[in-house]
Amino acid sequence: GHYIICGFSRTGRQIAKEFRAEGVAFVVVDSEIESVQRAQNEGYTIYQGDATLDDTLLKVGIERATCIVAALPSDAENLYTVLSAKTLNPAIRAIARASTEEALQKLQRGGADAVISPYITGGKRMAAAALRPQVLDFVDGILSGADRQLYMEEFLLDPAFCPFVGQTLQKAKLRSQTGALVLAIRRLDGNLIGGPTGDTILMPGDTLMCMGTAEQLRALNQVLGPINSHQVRRPKKV
Amino acid sequence: GHYIICGFSRTGRQIAKEFRAEGVAFVVVDSEIESVQRAQNEGYTIYQGDATLDDTLLKVGIERATCIVAALPSDAENLYTVLSAKTLNPAIRAIARASTEEALQKLQRGGADAVISPYITGGKRMAAAALRPQVLDFVDGILSGADRQLYMEEFLLDPAFCPFVGQTLQKAKLRSQTGALVLAIRRLDGNLIGGPTGDTILMPGDTLMCMGTAEQLRALNQVLGPINSHQVRRPKKV
Ligand SMILES: [Ca+2]
Ligand SMILES: [Ca+2]
Repeated sequence: GHYIICGFSRTGRQIAKEFRAEGVAFVVVDSEIESVQRAQNEGYTIYQGDATLDDTLLKVGIERATCIVAALPSDAENLYTVLSAKTLNPAIRAIARASTEEALQKLQRGGADAVISPYITGGKRMAAAALRPQVLDFVDGILSGADRQLYMEEFLLDPAFCPFVGQTLQKAKLRSQTGALVLAIRRLDGNLIGGPTGDTILMPGDTLMCMGTAEQLRALNQVLGPINSHQVRRPKKV
Repeated sequence: GHYIICGFSRTGRQIAKEFRAEGVAFVVVDSEIESVQRAQNEGYTIYQGDATLDDTLLKVGIERATCIVAALPSDAENLYTVLSAKTLNPAIRAIARASTEEALQKLQRGGADAVISPYITGGKRMAAAALRPQVLDFVDGILSGADRQLYMEEFLLDPAFCPFVGQTLQKAKLRSQTGALVLAIRRLDGNLIGGPTGDTILMPGDTLMCMGTAEQLRALNQVLGPINSHQVRRPKKV
C-alpha cells in the first residue's frame, strides 16, 4: 500500500523529501492552497482537504494505505486524524507529531504506533552533538539522506521463507556471504541482543538490525528469503 | 571543562536531562525567573542572565568551558550567543538550534560546530518511524536515555597511548578482549569505513564508532589506551 502525509509544513515537507529519496509511493494532504501549490511545484502528489475528515482520508485511499503520518499544526488535529485513520483502517500504521510530553502520551493512548516530539528529539540530538559528535554524524549518515554510503535496514525472519532459522549466525555466514553486518537482533518477546556473536541462534520472528551498503543489504535480503512475505523495502540506489 | 546550556525551554530542559543522565558537569543560563525557578526545582545549577551578553557568559565560566549549547527562543539570539562564545573562547565547541533551513546555514557560517533544526530532525525521524520502526527504536535506545542496555561511544586512537595503531583489527582482538563491537572507523581524512573486517588496519587519528554495554565500553577504553589524552567520557552506570 501507499503512504499518506497529513500536513505539508516544514516537518511534512521533510518527510516528503525522505519518502521520495526512498522511492516510497505517497500522497500529501493539506487544506491550505499555499501549501498545495508549494507541494505541486516540488513535484509531489497532493490532495487539498482537511485530513481530520473521514471523507478526505477516504479520497486519498486510507483503506488500502500502509501508513499515515500526521504532521498537522496542532496536537488535537493529529490525534483526531490518527483516530479517524485507525477507525477506517485498523491495520494502518500511524505516526504522529506531538508538541508536548502531554500530547505525546495522549497520541499514544489514541493508538499512534509512534509519536515524535520535535522538542524532545531536538534536545536529545543537541545533547548527542555535544557528547558524541562523531557517533551522531555516523548514525545520521546511515539513517537518512539520499546520497548515503551506508544504510541500516531491518529484516524480519519468516520461518516459511528463511533457510537459516534455527541455525547459528556462524553457520548462516551472513557476513561472509553478503558483507552486511548484523548489529542486533530483536526477539519476538522484545528482548534485544546487541552485537550477536557466532553462537547466537536465529529464531522465527527475529528482526535483524543490519548495516551495509545498498548492495550488501540487497544481497542479504536475497539470502534471507527470496520471497520475503513482509516486503522489506530496500535502499533504492547504490 | 564544563558544559553550558543557554535557554531552559522544552529543548533546553531535555538537554539538561540528557547531560544529567551522563554525569556531565554543566550550568544552565536563562533570563526568565520562571525558567530559573523551574530549573532550581528540578535540581539544576542555573544562572539568571541574558546569554547573548559577554558578561553573562563570563560569569558562567565560558573561558574554561568545553562546550556551549544555544537553545534560546530565537535564531538571532542563538547566532549572537555562538559568536560571543567563540570570541571569548575560540576552542569551545558550540551547538545551536535553528528553526529554519536558512537559520541553519547562518549558524553554520557563524561558527557553530553542529546545528540542529527540530523541524528537519523531527521530519527525518517521522519518516524513519514509518519506514524502519525497529531500526529507529534500536538506534534511539543506544543513543540516549538513562536506563540503556546498549551504548554507542566514539574512541579517538591516540598513537601516543594506543598500543594497536598500525595493527589489523584481527590482531588487536578488541571484540574478544572486550565484547564491544566496532561498527565503523572514521579516518583522519574523513573517509568512513563501515563494518570494518579483520583485515582493516588501525591508523593514528582514527575515530572508532563502537557499540556495547557500559561494561564492554569501559573495558574497550582501558584496552585502547589507559591514559587517553582526549578524555573519552564513558557511560556512567552499568
Ligand atoms: Ca512543521
Ligand atoms: Ca524549546
